[in-house]
Amino acid sequence: MAENVSTTRDRFLTAATELMRRQGYAATSVKQLTAAAGAPIGSLYHHFPEGKQQVAAAALRTSGAVYIQLLPLLMDPYDDLREAIPAAFAAAAEDLERSGWMNMCPVGTVAGEIADSEPALREVAAEVITSWIDQGTAYFVRRGLSPEVARELLIAMLSALEGAFILSRTLRSATPLHAAGRALAAHVDSMTGRGSAGKTPEPGADVGERTR
Amino acid sequence: MAENVSTTRDRFLTAATELMRRQGYAATSVKQLTAAAGAPIGSLYHHFPEGKQQVAAAALRTSGAVYIQLLPLLMDPYDDLREAIPAAFAAAAEDLERSGWMNMCPVGTVAGEIADSEPALREVAAEVITSWIDQGTAYFVRRGLSPEVARELLIAMLSALEGAFILSRTLRSATPLHAAGRALAAHVDSMTGRGSAGKTPEPGADVGERTR
Repeated sequence: MAENVSTTRDRFLTAATELMRRQGYAATSVKQLTAAAGAPIGSLYHHFPEGKQQVAAAALRTSGAVYIQLLPLLMDPYDDLREAIPAAFAAAAEDLERSGWMNMCPVGTVAGEIADSEPALREVAAEVITSWIDQGTAYFVRRGLSPEVARELLIAMLSALEGAFILSRTLRSATPLHAAGRALAAHVDSMTGRGSAGKTPEPGADVGERTR
Repeated sequence: MAENVSTTRDRFLTAATELMRRQGYAATSVKQLTAAAGAPIGSLYHHFPEGKQQVAAAALRTSGAVYIQLLPLLMDPYDDLREAIPAAFAAAAEDLERSGWMNMCPVGTVAGEIADSEPALREVAAEVITSWIDQGTAYFVRRGLSPEVARELLIAMLSALEGAFILSRTLRSATPLHAAGRALAAHVDSMTGRGSAGKTPEPGADVGERTR
């Protein structure tokens, strides 16, 4: 029984994540959540007494925690961060294109949608993004950067990634993700004291094909 | 009479822009649009026979056309793009903080919200973003960059700006916009063949106070 209860709760989280990825927070109704989870509305309010906003908050926390795990997965194979970052952006571009330009993670888009209108949910999104910044900074420190440089780079990278996802999904083009990844490689050089002239891939160079 | 008709249409556009900035597309109802515009529902369908989506599309086009005008306004005062870009990001951060972290422009956030769920509106957002890329590239060419480098830089800059807006609004912090602006200064150096060591502002340096 305890297992079933847990499974039903998880189904609501998965349903909320999927629906918010595809259509955002406001468009997602309690009716859609119960239909997608295959569970009655009483069950939703049993697990989430505050309703839709509470399911959404839990879904953002859960998917946010999974999403940041991609950072080491995508970057560990590269010895040098100035190669790792554009390669990770190129991998994201490839996944995005292969998926038919699907939204990968609801956190950034839902945050953009609700930051002015849903204060409680904005705080949850801020919590998730702060944890991304902390975990990502720790990863870059393990990769040899100073804490200050690591945090600066991580925040610039996360900004570029969230914005490039929106541009790439909207334009149906991998170009923004590739351009954003190349820009960050130059930033790594500048912050690690390496001159960048002649090292940055030329505009239009396909980092994806080059590194994968 | 023709003047009144035009005014009513404009009021619907302003209402749609304001509502979408604050709460996104899905949360914006026809009822809210007519209330905010101070016009009856019949008037909305007179000007926009296809209803809410058509008002939203026209509002995205109109506010998008205004928004790109900020690029020369913010950057013309600086002789060097490697100063102009972080200064423009710092000015955006200052405006954002002063506004109480209000969304500045609905295009990016609405695009992120609807790219998977509203194909017609996604195409309008793509049209607006493509026009930003074209106009911004032309501006950077006037500032002395080659067309290829100008386009690469503009796309990276737009990605960083849209993502940093989301992070800054969510975290209630100017840091993402400052970090994104500094990262792009390094990219300008790398693409214009200038070494960047020692020229990039240190992490934590307040570009806003330095340049304004």
